[in-house]
Amino acid sequence: MTLLKIGFPSGSLKDSTFNLFERAGYKVRLSSRSYVPSINDPELEGLMFRAQEIAQYVDRGVVDIGLTGKDWILESEADVVEVDELVYSKVSSRPVRWVIAVPEDSPIQRVEDLQGCRIASELVGATRRFLQERGIEAEVEFSWGTTEVKAGIPGLVDAIVELTETGSSLRANRLRIVDTICESTTRFIVNKAAWEDSWKREKAENLLMLLKGALEAELKVGLKMNVARAKLEEVIAKLPALHTPTVSNQLDDDWVALEIIADERVVRDLIPQLKRVGAEGIIEYPLNKVVY
Amino acid sequence: MTLLKIGFPSGSLKDSTFNLFERAGYKVRLSSRSYVPSINDPELEGLMFRAQEIAQYVDRGVVDIGLTGKDWILESEADVVEVDELVYSKVSSRPVRWVIAVPEDSPIQRVEDLQGCRIASELVGATRRFLQERGIEAEVEFSWGTTEVKAGIPGLVDAIVELTETGSSLRANRLRIVDTICESTTRFIVNKAAWEDSWKREKAENLLMLLKGALEAELKVGLKMNVARAKLEEVIAKLPALHTPTVSNQLDDDWVALEIIADERVVRDLIPQLKRVGAEGIIEYPLNKVVY
Amino acid sequence: MTLLKIGFPSGSLKDSTFNLFERAGYKVRLSSRSYVPSINDPELEGLMFRAQEIAQYVDRGVVDIGLTGKDWILESEADVVEVDELVYSKVSSRPVRWVIAVPEDSPIQRVEDLQGCRIASELVGATRRFLQERGIEAEVEFSWGTTEVKAGIPGLVDAIVELTETGSSLRANRLRIVDTICESTTRFIVNKAAWEDSWKREKAENLLMLLKGALEAELKVGLKMNVARAKLEEVIAKLPALHTPTVSNQLDDDWVALEIIADERVVRDLIPQLKRVGAEGIIEYPLNKVVY
Amino acid sequence: MTLLKIGFPSGSLKDSTFNLFERAGYKVRLSSRSYVPSINDPELEGLMFRAQEIAQYVDRGVVDIGLTGKDWILESEADVVEVDELVYSKVSSRPVRWVIAVPEDSPIQRVEDLQGCRIASELVGATRRFLQERGIEAEVEFSWGTTEVKAGIPGLVDAIVELTETGSSLRANRLRIVDTICESTTRFIVNKAAWEDSWKREKAENLLMLLKGALEAELKVGLKMNVARAKLEEVIAKLPALHTPTVSNQLDDDWVALEIIADERVVRDLIPQLKRVGAEGIIEYPLNKVVY
Amino acid sequence: MTLLKIGFPSGSLKDSTFNLFERAGYKVRLSSRSYVPSINDPELEGLMFRAQEIAQYVDRGVVDIGLTGKDWILESEADVVEVDELVYSKVSSRPVRWVIAVPEDSPIQRVEDLQGCRIASELVGATRRFLQERGIEAEVEFSWGTTEVKAGIPGLVDAIVELTETGSSLRANRLRIVDTICESTTRFIVNKAAWEDSWKREKAENLLMLLKGALEAELKVGLKMNVARAKLEEVIAKLPALHTPTVSNQLDDDWVALEIIADERVVRDLIPQLKRVGAEGIIEYPLNKVVY
Amino acid sequence: MTLLKIGFPSGSLKDSTFNLFERAGYKVRLSSRSYVPSINDPELEGLMFRAQEIAQYVDRGVVDIGLTGKDWILESEADVVEVDELVYSKVSSRPVRWVIAVPEDSPIQRVEDLQGCRIASELVGATRRFLQERGIEAEVEFSWGTTEVKAGIPGLVDAIVELTETGSSLRANRLRIVDTICESTTRFIVNKAAWEDSWKREKAENLLMLLKGALEAELKVGLKMNVARAKLEEVIAKLPALHTPTVSNQLDDDWVALEIIADERVVRDLIPQLKRVGAEGIIEYPLNKVVY
Repeated sequence: MTLLKIGFPSGSLKDSTFNLFERAGYKVRLSSRSYVPSINDPELEGLMFRAQEIAQYVDRGVVDIGLTGKDWILESEADVVEVDELVYSKVSSRPVRWVIAVPEDSPIQRVEDLQGCRIASELVGATRRFLQERGIEAEVEFSWGTTEVKAGIPGLVDAIVELTETGSSLRANRLRIVDTICESTTRFIVNKAAWEDSWKREKAENLLMLLKGALEAELKVGLKMNVARAKLEEVIAKLPALHTPTVSNQLDDDWVALEIIADERVVRDLIPQLKRVGAEGIIEYPLNKVVY
Repeated sequence: MTLLKIGFPSGSLKDSTFNLFERAGYKVRLSSRSYVPSINDPELEGLMFRAQEIAQYVDRGVVDIGLTGKDWILESEADVVEVDELVYSKVSSRPVRWVIAVPEDSPIQRVEDLQGCRIASELVGATRRFLQERGIEAEVEFSWGTTEVKAGIPGLVDAIVELTETGSSLRANRLRIVDTICESTTRFIVNKAAWEDSWKREKAENLLMLLKGALEAELKVGLKMNVARAKLEEVIAKLPALHTPTVSNQLDDDWVALEIIADERVVRDLIPQLKRVGAEGIIEYPLNKVVY
Repeated sequence: MTLLKIGFPSGSLKDSTFNLFERAGYKVRLSSRSYVPSINDPELEGLMFRAQEIAQYVDRGVVDIGLTGKDWILESEADVVEVDELVYSKVSSRPVRWVIAVPEDSPIQRVEDLQGCRIASELVGATRRFLQERGIEAEVEFSWGTTEVKAGIPGLVDAIVELTETGSSLRANRLRIVDTICESTTRFIVNKAAWEDSWKREKAENLLMLLKGALEAELKVGLKMNVARAKLEEVIAKLPALHTPTVSNQLDDDWVALEIIADERVVRDLIPQLKRVGAEGIIEYPLNKVVY
Repeated sequence: MTLLKIGFPSGSLKDSTFNLFERAGYKVRLSSRSYVPSINDPELEGLMFRAQEIAQYVDRGVVDIGLTGKDWILESEADVVEVDELVYSKVSSRPVRWVIAVPEDSPIQRVEDLQGCRIASELVGATRRFLQERGIEAEVEFSWGTTEVKAGIPGLVDAIVELTETGSSLRANRLRIVDTICESTTRFIVNKAAWEDSWKREKAENLLMLLKGALEAELKVGLKMNVARAKLEEVIAKLPALHTPTVSNQLDDDWVALEIIADERVVRDLIPQLKRVGAEGIIEYPLNKVVY
Repeated sequence: MTLLKIGFPSGSLKDSTFNLFERAGYKVRLSSRSYVPSINDPELEGLMFRAQEIAQYVDRGVVDIGLTGKDWILESEADVVEVDELVYSKVSSRPVRWVIAVPEDSPIQRVEDLQGCRIASELVGATRRFLQERGIEAEVEFSWGTTEVKAGIPGLVDAIVELTETGSSLRANRLRIVDTICESTTRFIVNKAAWEDSWKREKAENLLMLLKGALEAELKVGLKMNVARAKLEEVIAKLPALHTPTVSNQLDDDWVALEIIADERVVRDLIPQLKRVGAEGIIEYPLNKVVY
Repeated sequence: MTLLKIGFPSGSLKDSTFNLFERAGYKVRLSSRSYVPSINDPELEGLMFRAQEIAQYVDRGVVDIGLTGKDWILESEADVVEVDELVYSKVSSRPVRWVIAVPEDSPIQRVEDLQGCRIASELVGATRRFLQERGIEAEVEFSWGTTEVKAGIPGLVDAIVELTETGSSLRANRLRIVDTICESTTRFIVNKAAWEDSWKREKAENLLMLLKGALEAELKVGLKMNVARAKLEEVIAKLPALHTPTVSNQLDDDWVALEIIADERVVRDLIPQLKRVGAEGIIEYPLNKVVY
C-alpha cells in the first residue's frame, strides 16, 4: 500500500500542530513515551522529531513531508521543496528572527566588529555562513541552551545568535541587537522525489488545502440576515467587496435572505452598519473550514 | 483621537465580562498587576475598578461608560444614564437582592422592630436611606466581610443587610429575611456628558448592540429542515410565532428548505413534533450572535 | 404527575453520559455524594447506579429506562427491551470484549484446556455459563480488581476473564488471549411494562431521537459552496448519494449555492474533489443535532 | 534465601501504609501499573492486594503476613494469627463499624424485624452469619457500591449493612442504625505455618516492633531543660509519673540537665508549669521512633 | 465552664496563624463556610473576623484576645491591652508601613503640599487624624481596593495612603513616598476586663509562651559534639556567649559531650571553627519549641 | 571583596542542588528567567549552567567551583580538581551509565560489530574516544533527544549511546545493551588556580564540609536509650564499632543513659537487638547535619 510519511515536530509545536490537523480532519494521537503517532487515515504515517531534525529527514527520505521552521531548513542545508508557509503556532503572525546580540555596553556596533570574536549559538551553521559571506573570521561555538545569559558572563563570549520574537527577552537580559541572520516561519516541506511521485504529490496538496482551510476559518465567520427587497442594494453596498453574497427567497416575497462569509475582525463594525440600513434578524455563526 | 473610556469591574465579574466582550468581538487582556487592560480597538480604552466604585467614576467622568450593579449605583448616589440591563454573570437570570436578615429565633419580625438596633452591612448608605424613609433610627456599621455570620454571634449586631441570590447561604447560617432593601442586576451606564456627545453615543450604542447580540446567541440555535411542499403549512403551524421562517427551493421541486432561529430550550420539544408532521433532515447548529 | 425514571451509570460512563444528555438538550447535574441527579425536565427523574446493576433494576421496574453495557445485561440475565445501541463512551467505535487470558508461557492453548482450572474474573456468571455450554468444569472465582496481574502470580489462578479494548494492557502484563466470552456496547434499555405504556414509550422515543440526533451530529458537518450553474451536474455527481442537496439562487444568475450534510470523516476527501470540479467558496460549519 | 512475603493493601490504605513503613525504616515503592512494590530489604517481598483479599491470601500462604481490617478477616473466614492491632489510617483512633441501617421512617426497629427482608451489603458473609446466629431468615445480596443510597430507593431493599465511622454519611442519607454487625481496626496478621517458622516469626516480630515504634513516636516529643539543683525535686514532682527522667551534670555544678519523653498533647500544659517552678532553657524536639 | 475566646484573622493571615498554633500545640480547624473554628482545647473558643475588625471586637468584649495588626488597632481606636508583638506572617521580620504616595512626577513633595487635595485609602480614620494633627485639610475617601493604581489615573485623586513592605509595588506603579503614617506588626491583644481576670490572664500568658516558644524554635537548632577534655576550654571560647553549654561525661573519661542551642544562621560558620579546634562527631538537630 | 564563584547545574539537578545547599545552611533562590541565583552569603556568587557545560567553565575560570557529572567532565576533557563525589540527586546511590544499545533483534553483538556503523548519541566525544581506543571506525552523530526511539526506526542509525539508570527505559524501547562507555556520579570540582588560593580553598572546603554534613545526616539518626548499669557491656557489644557512645548518669544510679549516632539503614536491625539485650526506652530522633 502506498503511504505518505509525515515528520511532526515534537516539543513546543506538538500540541498546536496536532490541533491544526484535528481541525483539518485528521486525528493525530501520541501515547506518552511513544514517538509514532496514530493517524486516522491509513494512507498517512507519522513520526515525531525535534524541529531541528525534520528538514534533514525529509531530505533523506525518512519521511516524505514535514512541518518545521525556515531557520532549521537553512541550518541543516536540507535540499527539499518548500511548498508553502503555515502560520499557526502563535497568536501573532510576526515571524521569529535569529539575531546577533551583544551586551548593551559592548563596543561591538556592526557585524564587522565581530572579527576575531567568539560567538555562542544554537544555529551554528547558518551563523558561520552569514559571517563567511561578509569575510568575517570568528569562532562560532554551539550553545546547549539559555544562550541569552551567556552574553552577559564576563570572559565567556563576545556575542550570541539567538531567536527573538518581540525582543523583550533580549531587553530583560540587557542585550542589544547588532544584526539579523535570518527570519523564520513554519514551512510545509516535501522530499524532492516524493514531489515527483504523482500520488504523493496529490496527497500532500490535498492535505495542505485542508490545513489552510482550517487556518482560514479561524479568522472568518458566517453572517446571515433578512433584508427587505427594496433595501437590498443599499445593504449590498455596505458589504466587503471580495465575494458575491448568496441571496435566497423567503415565503414573504417582499423579503430576501442574504448570506456572506466575513472576516471576524470586521464583524463588529459591519453588524451595526447593516442594521442601520435595514438588515434584520442578523445572525453570526462559526466556521470549521473555508476553501476558496 | 477620540476615545471611549470603559470602566470594567475587577473581582468576580472580571472573567465573565472579558469573556462577553470576546464573544462580542473585542479581545480584552489584562496582564497581572496591571489595571489598564489592552483592547484590540484603538477607539476604546479600559480601566479596572471595584464594582463598588464604578458608578461614581462614571459620574465624575473618569470613564465614559461602565458595567456595574444597580445596587452600587444606588449606594454611591451616582448621577448617570442607565442605558440597559445586561444579564450575563450567572447561569440563572434571577436578580440578586439585598435583604435585612436576623437569626431565625430573633424577636424582630418587621422592619419597624429595628428601632434602636445595631446593623452590619457593606451597603451602609442605601441601608441608612431605607431606614430613614421609614422613620427608623438604628446604628448601621460597616462590615468588612463574612457579614452573614455576624448576625449569629451573641452581642455583636441585631441584624445584617446582605446580598442573596437563592437564599441558601442565609438558610445555612440559620437567618430569616425580614425585608428587601433593593434588587439588583448588572447595568450598562454612561456619563451624562458622554451621552450628549454624538460620537461617543454611537460608539456606546454599537458596543451595546454587539454585547446584547452575543448574549442573545447563548440562548438560541439555528434549525434547518427539508419539508415536502405539500406539508409546509402543517410544519409552519408548529413553529414558534415570533419570526417569519426562511424558505428556499431545492433541486427537487416538490421539496423546500426551511430555516428558523429558535430558543435552545424549546428545541427538544420542537424537533420531535416537526419530525412527526413530516420535516426531514432536521439539523441544529450553534450561533455566535443574534441581532434582531 | 407522570414521570419517566432513568437509570444512569455511575463511574467511568457518568461524565460522558451527562455530556450526551446536555447536547441532546437536557441539563443533568449531580451534587457530590448524591445519587439523584437533577434534570431540567419535570417529566424525567434520574438515579445513579453502577453499570453492573442497571439492567437488573430496569427489569424489576425500579427505573423505566437505563443505559448500560450488553455485557452486564447478559451477566445479570435481565429481561428487558433493548431498544437501541448508543456508541458514545469512547473515541473508537470498536466494542469492548471479555476474553479468557493466560500467561504467555502457559500450557493452556484452547478453552478445553481449562478443565479443572481456577479462573478469576469480575464477570463470574457469564463466564460460568460459557464454560458449562462447552462441558468444561472449572472454578470461577470473583476478582475484586487488578485482575490482569493475578494471572502472573505463581499459584494464584490459571486464567483470568477480563475486559479488553485494544489488547495493549494484556500485552503489557504478558498475557495471551485464549478465547472470547462476549462482545459489548452500550444499550438503551426499557422495562417491559413501561414499553407498553403509551406515554412512557413516546417520552422514551423522543428522548432517544434527541440523543441519537446529538450523536449523529458529532460525526457530521454542514458544507456550503458556490457552483457555476454550468458545472452543477458534475459537482453533484461527486456528492455522497445518500441525501438530496439543497440548491439556492444567487443574485448572479449564473451561480447557485449548494448545501449538504456530510460525514465529517469524508470531508477531507470530498473538499479537494469538489474544488477540482469547480466548487468555489467552500465552507464547513459545525452541527449540534442531525435528525433524519 | 529465606524471605518474608507481605501483602499490602491497595486502594485508600496504600499511601498511609507505605508512609508508616517508611517511618519504620523500610522504603516501599510502587511504580504505576505495577503490583509488586520494591522494598529496600532483600529479606522482604511485597505484593499489593485489595484489603478484602489479604486475609484469604495470608491463610493460603500466598504471603506470610498482611495488613488488613478485622472486618475482612471475618468476612473471608480466614484462619490466620492476629498478632496485633495497628491504628494508623485515620487521625481518629475510633474503630469503624459495620451497621445494619434502614430509612429513618422504616417500621424496622430491631434486628428481629428483618425476618423475610432483603438486605444489601458488601459484607455478605459476616452479615449472613450474624443473622443466622439470631435465627433470622433474610436475603442478603451483594452490593457493588454506594450501598447507602440503596436503602432509600423504594422497592430495592429493606435494609443495608454498611461501614460507618462517625455516622455522618448515614445521617446525610436519612438512615437510622438498627444494630452493629462488627467493629473493625487494622490488624497485623500472620500465616499459621509462618508463625511456627522461627526465622519468619522473629522477622515479623522485629518488623512489628519498628512499626509500633514509629506510631508511638507520632504522639511523643522529647523535652530537655536546665534546672538548678536546688529546685530539682520540685520540677520532678511536676513530671508525668510514667518514666524516670534522665539527669546530666553541667559545667556549672549548681545546675543539672533534665530530659524526658512526653505525650505531645500534655506539653502545652507541662511547659508553663515547669517554667513556673524554675526550669530554664526548655527545648522540645521531634522523635522518629519510641520503643519502650 | 470558664472559656478564653480568641478572635482569629481570616484572609491572608489565616493559614499562617493556624500553622503557628499547631506548632504551639493547638490544632485549630475551620470547615469551609464556617466561622467558628474547632480547637482541641475545651478551654479555648475561636471566632474568625477580618483583621480590620478584631481590635474593635476585643474592645467590646465579643472575644477576650485577638491577633491583628497595629495599623487596624489604631484605625479602629480600640482600647485594648497590647501584650506582645508576634512576627510570623512573612519570611522577613521587617514591619509593614502605611505611606502617603504620589506619582513620581507630582509637584507634591511634603505632607504640607496635600492642603486641599483628594486622597484615597483603606485606612481613612488614621489618615484623617494624621493630617488633622498637622493642620492639613484634605478630602480622604474610602478606596475599595487596588489603591495603588488610583494615584496614576488622571483626575481621580492627588495621593493615596497604602501598605508597603519593600516598596517594590509602589515602584512598579511609578509612585514616590511622601511620608509615613504608621508602621505595623502583628500584636497579641487582650480585652481590658479579661486582663484583670486571673484565670483568663494566666491562660492567655501560657498560650503566648507557647506561641513564642514555637516562633523561637524556627530560628534555632540544637548542636552536640564530642570534645577531648584537654580542648574543652578552647572549644567553649568559640561558642556564642549567650547560654551556658551542657557537658556530659562519656565512658572514655578523656572525652566529654557538649550540647548547645544556637541560632540557625551562625551554624554554617560555627561548625567549621569548632571542627578546627578539635570538636568531633558534631551533630545538628531540629527543635520544635525553645522557652528560655 | 573576595568572592567564591559557583557554577550550579540547571535542569533536572537544579532543585535537588538548591535543596542540598538549603540543608547545609545556604538559601539559594532563582527568580524565573534569571540565571544568577541569589545566595544569603555575601562571599558566594552563583551562576546557572547546563550540566554539560560546567566542567569546561570551571577549567576556564569562569567560576571557581562547580557541581556536575563525571560524564560531562570526561566529555568536555576539562582539566579541573575533582575534590569529592556528592551523591544526592536520586534516592538510589547507583551511578548512571552511558551504554551502547541496539534493537533486540540486531545482528550486532559486541562492540567490534559496530565497524562501519552509524551511531546517535548526546555524548559524541566520549563515544568517539571509546571506539578509537578499540580501533573501530564508526560514524557518531549528535542526537537532539529521544535517542532511544531512534534505534528502532528503519534506516536511521545502527546503534545509540544513551544514559541509563535501571535499564527499564531501554527495555521499554526493546533495546539490548552491547557495552558500557562510562559510569558517572556528581562531582564537586574546583578550578586549579582557585585551589592554590588559600582563601578560596578554605571557603570551598568549609562549604564542602557543610554539604557533606547535610548529606551524611540524611543517612543517620540519633539513638538514645536507658540501660541498666549491669547490662551496659552487653548492650555496647551490639553497637556498631565505629564511634564511642556517650553515657550519662541518671537519678537512679543503677541506670545509665546511652546515646549514639547510627546509620538510618541499620536501625531497623539494631533496635530489636538492643531491646533483646536489655535496652529500654529507646528513642530515635532526626538529624540536620553530621560532621565527624
